[in-house]
Amino acid sequence: MFYLVGLGLCDEKDITIRGLEIVKASSRVYLEAYTSILMVQKERLEAFYGKELILADRDMVETESDEMLRDADREDVTLLVVGDPFGATTHTDIILRARALKIPTRVIHNASIMNAIGACGLQLYNFGQTVSLVFFTETWKPDSFYDRVKENMDLGMHTLLLLDIKVKEQSEENLARGRKIYEPPRYMSISTAVSQLVDVESTRQAGILRPDITLAVAMSRVGGGEAERIVCGTLEELVSQPPEVFGEPLHSLVIVGKRLHHLEVEYAEAYAINRETWRSVAQNVYGCALDS
Amino acid sequence: MFYLVGLGLCDEKDITIRGLEIVKASSRVYLEAYTSILMVQKERLEAFYGKELILADRDMVETESDEMLRDADREDVTLLVVGDPFGATTHTDIILRARALKIPTRVIHNASIMNAIGACGLQLYNFGQTVSLVFFTETWKPDSFYDRVKENMDLGMHTLLLLDIKVKEQSEENLARGRKIYEPPRYMSISTAVSQLVDVESTRQAGILRPDITLAVAMSRVGGGEAERIVCGTLEELVSQPPEVFGEPLHSLVIVGKRLHHLEVEYAEAYAINRETWRSVAQNVYGCALDS
Repeated sequence: MFYLVGLGLCDEKDITIRGLEIVKASSRVYLEAYTSILMVQKERLEAFYGKELILADRDMVETESDEMLRDADREDVTLLVVGDPFGATTHTDIILRARALKIPTRVIHNASIMNAIGACGLQLYNFGQTVSLVFFTETWKPDSFYDRVKENMDLGMHTLLLLDIKVKEQSEENLARGRKIYEPPRYMSISTAVSQLVDVESTRQAGILRPDITLAVAMSRVGGGEAERIVCGTLEELVSQPPEVFGEPLHSLVIVGKRLHHLEVEYAEAYAINRETWRSVAQNVYGCALDS
Repeated sequence: MFYLVGLGLCDEKDITIRGLEIVKASSRVYLEAYTSILMVQKERLEAFYGKELILADRDMVETESDEMLRDADREDVTLLVVGDPFGATTHTDIILRARALKIPTRVIHNASIMNAIGACGLQLYNFGQTVSLVFFTETWKPDSFYDRVKENMDLGMHTLLLLDIKVKEQSEENLARGRKIYEPPRYMSISTAVSQLVDVESTRQAGILRPDITLAVAMSRVGGGEAERIVCGTLEELVSQPPEVFGEPLHSLVIVGKRLHHLEVEYAEAYAINRETWRSVAQNVYGCALDS
């Protein structure tokens, strides 16, 4: 059997009992480490699981998957995935490949940012489509995400923005020269994300991401207990926070939609940079009826 | 500390290691049993966790929450929730109440239908807002969900429909007479759900839920391994299946949106009632380019 086991969001203890039993019984265990990251290193997982983990980078998962699936028709092989296995397209690809090889598969679900984002108090059923935000470069500033956010905003829905992760990327020069030299990993911060949003708004001007009156919620290390940070406010409030407010990766951002319920405002108020701004924008711009 | 611990989707082994440690260390452990259900009974959880569980019904969670929070400022008290704690509004309410009483809280996330639905191969980021479908009665057929599905369909998004659960409900007569006699629990089946959709389409006629050309995916006991069922096809194909095809609760339904990717079609094809219909509707009605 080929198992895809979700690790959840933070550390070695977020795996489920069933997931841990499968890891212990597997002859080989891979750890996918390029679509997301945990808050702990591979060695800590290995010590806790009592099992050596093989690091699986993009090349291995996407182009050498047959090696990963080797003998999985006769023994148990596991691929560990941060969050839930269906968070990234690449994991459905590997199941398709396993099916083609007639290898049975099973998925062990876990929390992912797609549902844990509910921790900010915005109701999950009020979220529209999810959007990815990639690092802008001097010459490449893809802004199609803006149309998706606008579609959600027009309906009053909240939008979860997944912020870019660059792991084992090559510089253009190294890529051109075929040199397998990799840049250090980069994780998009809240400040970078908000700056990019404001940048695109100034070009596109549909008025959906206005620094002074668009509300957003920044979340860092969701599910990480003491390490978790939830911070909300207008875009300009968020962008002006010093980096230590959000701290280490991973960061996610939610753009608040107009179909905002007063209980959502009240719940998230505990995380507001400025409670007064938070409430007054919710009331006067979003039209949310709050107790005064 | 007051803990809200997600149990995941199916049985006693879907709790996380961290969740289990918290359960074992708590002086009282409640089990919320009216917004969702596991595939196993309370006794099996108690045996595995080595802990007595107090069943928490709607009255207890919504109106007697202070009893549940009693002493949680001095000892550890846990409320177990099927899926993830932020799946239902009622759990954010209890955190608000704890805050008001100055009781510290922590949430342990887990898989819920909101992210595990990805198991059908439709990409999570292509889902719009989530919709709840309640049991129709002779006199009450609320159809506002139709507007929400239409908003998603107009954008080409998929829609997750959460099907009604009736636990510890009173009949109108018993309610009127103040008799605390409860009806047996009811869980909406795929057949009932699809019949209701087709019923509303025949009244509203926006053409978004057409029996012959609207595709949907039915999911039962998601994450339940051997017990999991994923079945897809047109609405009329789904409604004509005998009940044993979907089996025991819980059931969920996804209405497929037009922004359908060929990999989504190919992945879910393995679950199609009729592969030919599935592919031809995807290609000819949804406009999805497939290899022939």
